[in-house]
Amino acid sequence: MKRFAFAFEEMRASPETVFLLGNKGAQLAEMTSIGLPVPFGFTISTDACREFFAAKGQWPSGLKEQVREKIASLEKKAGKQFGSRENPLLVSVRSGSYVSMPGMMDTVLNLGLNDETVRGLATQTGNERMAFDSYRRFIHMFADVVMGVKHELFEEAIAELKHSVNAKSDTDLSTGQLQQLVDRYKAIVTEFAGQSFPSDAWAQLEMAVSAVFRSWYNERAIKYREINNLRHDAGTGVTVQSMVFGNMGNDSATGVCFTRNPSTGAKEFFGEFLINAQGEDVVAGIRTPQPIQELEKFIPSAYLELVRIQALLETHYKDLQDIEFTVEHGKLFMLQTRAGKRTAQAAVRVAVDMVNERLISREEALLLVKAEQLDKLLHKQLDPEAKKKALVIARGLPASPGAAVGQVVFSARKVAELFKKDKNAQLILVRTETSPEDIEGMHLAKGILTARGGLTSHAAVVARGMGKCCVAGSNDIMVEEKNKKFKAGDLNIMELEWVSLDGSAGEVYLGQLPVSDPTFSKDFEILMSWADKVRRLKVRANADTPVDARKAREFGAQGIGLCRTEHMFFEKGRIKAVREMIVAPDKEGRLKALAKLLPFQKGDFKALFKEMNGLPVVIRLLDPPLHEFLPKSKKQLLDLAEEMDVPYKKLRRVVKGLHECNPMLGHRGCRLGLTYPEINEMQCRAVFEAALECEAEGFRPLPEIEVPLVGFANELVETRKVIERIARETGVEGKVHYKIGTMIELPRACVTADEIAPHADFFSFGTNDLTQTTLGFSRDDVGKFVPIFLQQGILSKDPFQVIDREGVGKLMHTCIEKGRSVKPSLEVGICGEHGGEAESVMFCHELGLDYVSCSPFRIPIARLAAAQAVILEAKAIDGIGVVKPVASLSPVAEP
Amino acid sequence: MKRFAFAFEEMRASPETVFLLGNKGAQLAEMTSIGLPVPFGFTISTDACREFFAAKGQWPSGLKEQVREKIASLEKKAGKQFGSRENPLLVSVRSGSYVSMPGMMDTVLNLGLNDETVRGLATQTGNERMAFDSYRRFIHMFADVVMGVKHELFEEAIAELKHSVNAKSDTDLSTGQLQQLVDRYKAIVTEFAGQSFPSDAWAQLEMAVSAVFRSWYNERAIKYREINNLRHDAGTGVTVQSMVFGNMGNDSATGVCFTRNPSTGAKEFFGEFLINAQGEDVVAGIRTPQPIQELEKFIPSAYLELVRIQALLETHYKDLQDIEFTVEHGKLFMLQTRAGKRTAQAAVRVAVDMVNERLISREEALLLVKAEQLDKLLHKQLDPEAKKKALVIARGLPASPGAAVGQVVFSARKVAELFKKDKNAQLILVRTETSPEDIEGMHLAKGILTARGGLTSHAAVVARGMGKCCVAGSNDIMVEEKNKKFKAGDLNIMELEWVSLDGSAGEVYLGQLPVSDPTFSKDFEILMSWADKVRRLKVRANADTPVDARKAREFGAQGIGLCRTEHMFFEKGRIKAVREMIVAPDKEGRLKALAKLLPFQKGDFKALFKEMNGLPVVIRLLDPPLHEFLPKSKKQLLDLAEEMDVPYKKLRRVVKGLHECNPMLGHRGCRLGLTYPEINEMQCRAVFEAALECEAEGFRPLPEIEVPLVGFANELVETRKVIERIARETGVEGKVHYKIGTMIELPRACVTADEIAPHADFFSFGTNDLTQTTLGFSRDDVGKFVPIFLQQGILSKDPFQVIDREGVGKLMHTCIEKGRSVKPSLEVGICGEHGGEAESVMFCHELGLDYVSCSPFRIPIARLAAAQAVILEAKAIDGIGVVKPVASLSPVAEP
Repeated sequence: MKRFAFAFEEMRASPETVFLLGNKGAQLAEMTSIGLPVPFGFTISTDACREFFAAKGQWPSGLKEQVREKIASLEKKAGKQFGSRENPLLVSVRSGSYVSMPGMMDTVLNLGLNDETVRGLATQTGNERMAFDSYRRFIHMFADVVMGVKHELFEEAIAELKHSVNAKSDTDLSTGQLQQLVDRYKAIVTEFAGQSFPSDAWAQLEMAVSAVFRSWYNERAIKYREINNLRHDAGTGVTVQSMVFGNMGNDSATGVCFTRNPSTGAKEFFGEFLINAQGEDVVAGIRTPQPIQELEKFIPSAYLELVRIQALLETHYKDLQDIEFTVEHGKLFMLQTRAGKRTAQAAVRVAVDMVNERLISREEALLLVKAEQLDKLLHKQLDPEAKKKALVIARGLPASPGAAVGQVVFSARKVAELFKKDKNAQLILVRTETSPEDIEGMHLAKGILTARGGLTSHAAVVARGMGKCCVAGSNDIMVEEKNKKFKAGDLNIMELEWVSLDGSAGEVYLGQLPVSDPTFSKDFEILMSWADKVRRLKVRANADTPVDARKAREFGAQGIGLCRTEHMFFEKGRIKAVREMIVAPDKEGRLKALAKLLPFQKGDFKALFKEMNGLPVVIRLLDPPLHEFLPKSKKQLLDLAEEMDVPYKKLRRVVKGLHECNPMLGHRGCRLGLTYPEINEMQCRAVFEAALECEAEGFRPLPEIEVPLVGFANELVETRKVIERIARETGVEGKVHYKIGTMIELPRACVTADEIAPHADFFSFGTNDLTQTTLGFSRDDVGKFVPIFLQQGILSKDPFQVIDREGVGKLMHTCIEKGRSVKPSLEVGICGEHGGEAESVMFCHELGLDYVSCSPFRIPIARLAAAQAVILEAKAIDGIGVVKPVASLSPVAEP
Repeated sequence: MKRFAFAFEEMRASPETVFLLGNKGAQLAEMTSIGLPVPFGFTISTDACREFFAAKGQWPSGLKEQVREKIASLEKKAGKQFGSRENPLLVSVRSGSYVSMPGMMDTVLNLGLNDETVRGLATQTGNERMAFDSYRRFIHMFADVVMGVKHELFEEAIAELKHSVNAKSDTDLSTGQLQQLVDRYKAIVTEFAGQSFPSDAWAQLEMAVSAVFRSWYNERAIKYREINNLRHDAGTGVTVQSMVFGNMGNDSATGVCFTRNPSTGAKEFFGEFLINAQGEDVVAGIRTPQPIQELEKFIPSAYLELVRIQALLETHYKDLQDIEFTVEHGKLFMLQTRAGKRTAQAAVRVAVDMVNERLISREEALLLVKAEQLDKLLHKQLDPEAKKKALVIARGLPASPGAAVGQVVFSARKVAELFKKDKNAQLILVRTETSPEDIEGMHLAKGILTARGGLTSHAAVVARGMGKCCVAGSNDIMVEEKNKKFKAGDLNIMELEWVSLDGSAGEVYLGQLPVSDPTFSKDFEILMSWADKVRRLKVRANADTPVDARKAREFGAQGIGLCRTEHMFFEKGRIKAVREMIVAPDKEGRLKALAKLLPFQKGDFKALFKEMNGLPVVIRLLDPPLHEFLPKSKKQLLDLAEEMDVPYKKLRRVVKGLHECNPMLGHRGCRLGLTYPEINEMQCRAVFEAALECEAEGFRPLPEIEVPLVGFANELVETRKVIERIARETGVEGKVHYKIGTMIELPRACVTADEIAPHADFFSFGTNDLTQTTLGFSRDDVGKFVPIFLQQGILSKDPFQVIDREGVGKLMHTCIEKGRSVKPSLEVGICGEHGGEAESVMFCHELGLDYVSCSPFRIPIARLAAAQAVILEAKAIDGIGVVKPVASLSPVAEP
C-alpha cells in the first residue's frame, strides 16, 4: 500500500521530502531528527492531496488507516488518548506546501475537544477556564475553516456576551461565561452550517484534513501562487501534531522570531511573543506582543534555550530562519522553522554577511537571494506600510514597475505647461490611451496611467523604455479629458488631485503615499561581482536611447541586445517625416521623407555607439506595421491632415489601406524592408555612417544589424544583400567590424534554422512574438482567458512572464540544434522580455545561449539568475528548484 | 569544368534531363535519339541560367567556350559556317523550362543573318526574296526580344511601306522592297535602342542567349508560374538549333498538330499548317492555317511521314503529343514534341481511351490527368472564348470557384423581393461586405461580389460552403448602395445591369457571358473508380449542412471531416439567439439563449447524420471569436439594439468589450468553451440527442466531436470532461459509438503532441490556422507582401494554397511522430483547405495521414491525387514531380 502518513522522526528534510510533505512537515521532521524539542506529530503527504483532488474529494485508499495508526502512535508517546474524556490528546491540523504560503491555507488548533474531552483537558491542566477557552476557540476555528460558517457570527456572539456582562477583554470572561459561549457557538453552527457541530474526535479530524486539502484551491491561495509563480498542481501536505499550550498561565507563552532582522538583514535576534496565549493571538493582534528579548525576564530558562536553538538552526540550515515556538509551563517547544521571508535589502545583506562569517560559500550566498526580488532594489517603491492603510481606487496592468506620486493631469500639453512653470512639479499623466504626440508629456510626468491598452500598448512600451512607472489598461477608470477628471467607481478625481501609482502591482492609490528610493548597497555590489565571476551567460540590455544605454552600462550590461529603431521614430521632429514616408504615393516620395530621417537616426546611433564604446550594439531594422505611426481617431486625423497639408480623405484612405485584421501577423518585420527596401537602406546607411564617424573620433563601435520576423531563409538572404550593398557603398567594410543576424520569432524559423543559419552571424530569440505564434496567444488579447486558465490550472504559469519550456522551449531547442548543426560558431541570444525573468534566464543557460538581453532595470536580476543557473547545474537541480513534475489535477467543488 | 551545353544526340529525356535542359531540349534530344528527323542542335542547361542570375547577368565561366564548340560541331554536321557570307549557318534560339510555359518566354529565329550572310542565304537557297524576308523578320524579332525595341515600330514601318507600294499582303512585297525594309528596320533599331543592330553573328548569339535567360523573369512568365504553381527558381534552358525553312516555296510548310483532339480527347489526328511559312506565321494568325489533313494534297510524302511519326511519338511517350514540324523542300523536320495541353474533359477521355487501347496501364492513366484540372469539371465555367472578347471591369479574390451570370442587386432584401416575383431571377448580390443578415439573399443569388474582405471573409466562407461563385475583396469597385450602383473605374454599373463572375479567377465581366455546365462523363466515373481502388488515403468532406453533405456523398466522400457548427449559427432564427447569448450579462442569461439554440442544432445534426448514415461526422465545437456574430457599423448596431430591445449603449459596450487586436490569436477555439462551458454543453447535448434519435429511427450515426485550437493538453482534458459528462447525462454511452479528438492548429500542439494524444481519439490538422501561426502570416493580411514575395522568388508557392512542406510540414511530421509514439492507433486527418489541393494531398499521403477532408467540390481532386500519391510513391518520385531542389536565385535588372 502507498504510504501517505509519515511520523516526524521517520524523515529528514530534503528537496524530495519538502515536495512530498510540504516545507512545514519536512522541517518539523528535521528538527525532531536533530534533537530539538518538537511536539510529537506526523504529516500527510502532498501525494494524498493530489489523489484527493483526482478522486473528486475522496480520501485515497489506505489514508484513513494510516492516520489512525499514526494517531495511535502519538497517543503512546504522549501518554494521552484521542477523544478520551479522561486524558484527551488534542492535535493541531496544519497545511504546508513545498513553498511556504503563509496564511494562504487553513489551520485548525485544539482538535479533539468536545463536551466530554473538555472536562478531561480541565483535569489534565488543572485549569478549567483554559479548557473552555480552548474549546470555544476550537469551535469558532473549526466552524469557520471546515464548515464554512462565517467568522463574524462568532465574533458578534462574543462581543454581545462581553457587552452583556460588561467584560472589557476576552480574559475577563469567567469559566461559566465561556461555557455559555460554547453553547451559543454550537447553536450558531447548527443554524448556519445546516448540521450540528461534530463531537466525535475522529470525525473532526477527517473533516479538518479534507478542509486543509481543499484550502489548496481557495481563492487567495490560487492568487498567491499566481503572483509568486508557484505550481498549482503541487498540493498541500497536512501536519497533525499534538497540541502544546502557551495559554497555561504566566509560565507559558507563544511567539515568532527570526534569527536576523528580516527588514534590514542585521545580525540580531529578532521577534516577539505573548505570555499566556496561543499562536493565533500573536497573529490576530488583539494583544500587543513584546520584543523577544523581554522573554528573558518572564521565563529565563526558556529564553536561553530559545537563543541557543535559534543560533543552532541558523547554522544548521545556513540561512535566516523564521521560527515559531510555544512555552508550556516553562518548557520550550519548537513548532516551526523555515527560511525567513526578508526584504530584498535584507536578503543581500544576509547573504554577504554569512559569507563574511564563513557560514556559507559564495555560491551558497548567491542562491540565498531570489533574483526576482532584486527588482525591488532597482525601482522606487511605495511604502508597504502606507499601502496597507491607503485606498486602492483602481487596478490595471503592471505595465512598468516602480512607484510614482503626483498630481493628475489629463493632457501631455498641460503636463508640459505646468512643468514649465515649476521644474519640480510632480505630475501623473492620465489618458484613455497614449499616442506618439504624448511622448514629451510622458517624459516630464512622474508616472503614467491609462484606461485602455495592454502590456504592449504604446504607453506600456514607452514607459518601460523610459524606466518610468506605468499602470496601463485600467478598466476601473473612465477618463473625461474634457471635464478634467477621471472616474474610478463612484469617485471623481479632478485635475491636480494627488494619486500614487504602484507600477509593479498595477495599483492606483488615492493621495500622496511615502516612497522609498532605490538603493545600491555596497553588499549589493559585492554580490553582483560574485555572480559575474560565476555566470557563463552574458547579459545585454534592451535599450533604444543613449540615456537607457548609460543606465544599462551602470547596471552591468555587456552590450545592447536590442535597439528598437522605431522607438526613435516616435520622437518629436521625426514622427512627421515618418508619416510623410508612409503617406508618400511612390518610392520617390518615400526616399525624400527618409532622407529627412537619416540624420536623426545617424545621430541616435552615434550617441549609442559612444555610450557602448567597445561593446556590441544590436540594431533591429524597422519592425512594427506602419499604421502604428499614424493616429486613429477622426479628430487626430483631421489635425494631422492639416498639419501635413494633405487632404483628409487621402489620409483616411492611407489609414484604411494600412488596416489589418491581425497586425501581429501582418505587414511588418522584414516584410516591410523587403517591400520597401529604401527603409532598410536608410537605416543601414545611418548605422554605417555613424559607426565610421565614431571610429574616426577614436571610439570602437560594434554594430550588429538584426533582421526581424524572418520565417524563410530567402527573406534573410535578400535583406542581407541590401545591407551588404550599403556597407560597400558607405565604405564601412574593413574599417568597422559588423555582424548581420536575425531575430527568431516564428515557429517556421525554428524548424528551418539550418536553412537560415548559413546566412546569419547571430540569432536572437524574440520570445514575445515566438510565444504569441507558438501558442496562438495574442498578448494584447489574452486577458479574457489566460487568468481563467491559470486559475483552473490549465496553465501553470503565464507564458508571457516565464518561458513556456514545453512548447516555446522545445522550438528554441530545435532552433539552436539545427542552427549550430550547420554553423557551430553561431552566436545565440534572447531579447524578448523573458530575458530579464529569472526562471527563463536559467532556461536560457540550460539551452546554451550566449547571452540574454533585457531592460536595463532587470540586468542585475539576469546577472544573478545566470550565476544561479551555473550553481544549480553543478548541483544537478533543475531551474525551478526542488520540484519534480506530477500529474496535473484540478480543483473540485466544495461538497 | 562544369558542362553547360549538351548536343541533342548526347542526351535522352528523363526527369533529370527535363529539369536540366528544360522540356523542349530534353524532348528534342529524345526524338533525335529515337531516329526522328530533327535539325541538329544543342541545349544550354538551366544550371547556366541559374548561375547567370546568381552572377547578376554574367555568363558562367566556360559557357562561352562550350557554345563555340557546339556551334563548330553544328557547322560540321550541317556543312555550313556560322557567320559565313558564302554558306551561312542560321540558328534558332529558344527557351524551355522544366514545365512547358507556352509563349511566356522569348524565341529568336534566323539568327546569324546580317548584310553579308543574307547574300549567302540567297545563294544557298536560290531564293533571294526569301533571304531578305527572313532577314527583315530576324531584325524585327531580335530587336524586339533582345534589344527591347517596340514591336509596333516595325509593324508601322511595314504597313507604311505596303501602303506606299499598294501591297495587300506581306507576300506582295518584292525583294527590293524587302531590302528597303531591312534598312528602315535597322534605322529604327539605331534610333530606339541607342545602339546599332549587331552584325556579328557571335554577338547576336550571345545577346540572344542572355535575353532568353532574362525572359525567365519577365512579367508574364512570373505571372504564369504563379498561376500554375511552378517554381520561380528553376530557370530556363536555351535550345540552339540549325534553322530549317518552311518558307522555301510551295514544297515547304510549317505546322502544329496533336495526336488526339485536345478539346474533346477524341482519337483523331488534329492540327493545322501553312504552306510556305515560318512557325511564327501560324501563331500570329496573319494567314489562316488549313486543317492538317489538307497537307496530304500539297506534300503527300511529308504528310504520310508526319502521320507515321505522330503515331510513333504517342506510342513512345504514351501520351497525347503536341508536335511542331516544318517541311523544307518536301523534307519533314520535327521541331518539338511535348505532352499536349488539353481540357479536363479531354484529359479524362484520353486517359480512359488509352487504357482501353492497351497503350497504358490504369496507373499510368491516373497520372495522365492533373488532379487540379478536375476542378473545371465540377463547376460551371464561363466560356473561355467569350471571356477573351469580354471586358473585365474588376478583379478581386477568387473566393469561391465557378461562374455566375446575373443582374446586380445591392441588398439581400432586394434579392429576396425580386426572387419572390420571379423564381428564375438570375441575380448577383453586390455588397461592400456581407454579414449574417445577408445569408438568405446570398442563398438566392447566383453569385456574390464584395468590395472588401479576404479569402476568409464572411462572404467567402459562406459562398464556398454553399458552393456558390464568389469574387471577394475587389478593390476595383466601390459600392454605393444608396444610389443603387457600383463604380468600377469610370464605369457605373446600375441595379439590374448584367455582369458575369468568374469565381475561379476572381474576375468580373460586363454583360452576360455564355456558361458551360459541369459534366460528369462515364469516363470520369471510370477514372474515379480506378483511383479509389489505388488510393490509401480516405477522403472526407468539409460540410456544414445536409445539402452539402448530400453533395459530398455524390462526389464520393467517406464521411464528414469538418462540420463547422458556427455556420449553423448564422442562419435565420438562430443568429438572434446567438446574439442574446453574447449580450447576456451572466451564465443564467447565456443558458436561456442556448436553450433556444439547442433544438436548431439538434435538428441540423440529425439531418447530417441521416445524410451520412454509417459514415463518420466530425463536429467541431464553436470556434470563432464571438464578435463575429455581431454587426460592426453603428447603424446595424442601432437596428439590432432596437430588435433585441437592449440599450444601444449596452450593445456598443459588448461589441467594444469583444474587440481584439489580433482576433486570430484571441478568445476563440477551445478557449471559448473553457471560459463558457455552457456553450460546449449545449452543442454536445445537441450532438448526442440527435445521434440517439437517429439511432432510434434505424440510422447509424458516428459522431466525432472535435475540440478546436488546442495548444495545451490540459485544454483538451478539461473540455473532454465536459463532453463525457454530457455523454453520460444524455445516456449515449453504449448506444452510439462516438469519438473525441482535437484539431491541430498551433505549433505548440505539434511539439507537445505526445502530451495531447493520450486524451484524443483523433487529430485533425487545421492547416489554415497552422500555416498562419507557423509562418506568422495572417491570411487576411498577406495581400501586401505574399504576391511580392512570390514575384521575388522569396516564396516559391503560396503557402495557403500548397502546404509549406519545409515549415508547416515539418511540424506536422513532428506531431504525427510524437502523437503516434504514445498512441499508435491515433487517427490523423486534415481539414484545412489544403486537404483538397492535389500537391498537399500527396504530401498528406507521404506523412501517413488516414484521411483528407475538403469542400465537396474538391473531393474528386483529392481522390485522384491520393491515388497518384500511391503510384508516384511506388515509382519513388516525389510528389512535386520531377523537380530536385536547387539553390535559390533572384531576378537581376535588365542591363
